[in-house]
Amino acid sequence: MALVIRPLEQRDFQNGFLEILASLAEVRLTPEEAQRIHQARVLAGVVTVVAEAEGRVVGTGTLLIERKFIHGGGVVGHIEDVAVGSDQHGKGVGSELVRHLTDLARQAGCYKVILNCRDAVMPFYIKLGYRRHDNGMRYDCVEKG
Amino acid sequence: MALVIRPLEQRDFQNGFLEILASLAEVRLTPEEAQRIHQARVLAGVVTVVAEAEGRVVGTGTLLIERKFIHGGGVVGHIEDVAVGSDQHGKGVGSELVRHLTDLARQAGCYKVILNCRDAVMPFYIKLGYRRHDNGMRYDCVEKG
Repeated sequence: MALVIRPLEQRDFQNGFLEILASLAEVRLTPEEAQRIHQARVLAGVVTVVAEAEGRVVGTGTLLIERKFIHGGGVVGHIEDVAVGSDQHGKGVGSELVRHLTDLARQAGCYKVILNCRDAVMPFYIKLGYRRHDNGMRYDCVEKG
Repeated sequence: MALVIRPLEQRDFQNGFLEILASLAEVRLTPEEAQRIHQARVLAGVVTVVAEAEGRVVGTGTLLIERKFIHGGGVVGHIEDVAVGSDQHGKGVGSELVRHLTDLARQAGCYKVILNCRDAVMPFYIKLGYRRHDNGMRYDCVEKG
């Protein structure tokens, strides 16, 4: 399977991107709404990539770059929302996405890249050079129904 | 001690802010360099607050707001770089900072607020309504000397 990792484009909102994301959480966006959100994210310096195979989006991931005061004004990469289509698991799509996002972070001068994951996914990230560093804590602003 | 939590201002770069941050990691910034970084962070939608007591900066914390595609284009708050002066520990400065940043996130419409911390600091965040959710993973782009 020829796999290409490239930046998200407008046409992807009608080519599988929103369906892939829905494996993470509900999306509820029209392609037009998604395009407006994409523009806001680009302005904020957020990079969204997709994995494309045979003309179809089969995975996605996001790199958010945060400028710090510490580390001499250094930058940190946050990897967010890595998702792969359920029919594509085990083909290395997720690994390619994370390697690509980690490379983008390094090219942007990040001194570290961080991400959060559940216990079951830790071995996947450890194989890619990540190590467990601390705990992800969460506060829900909206009570779950 | 009368404590005020307010947005970071330019004068804070010469009023203890950079020294407080240095308790987290090296800073190596002149006030002028810090001001340029602050402007870039504001443009990216990053909110930095300080705790002021008796005219001096005694703590700081940051809220980064991330627009998602998931959750109907919802926003997530990331709390980063909470620091309190070593002579101010145990006075509730950290709690006030985190409560304030969590409130700011709620007001901004965030459906959740997330942050990462070491094991020893977990009880502090649990008291403030946070719960452990997952693992913080890290990749170092630069080998440590």
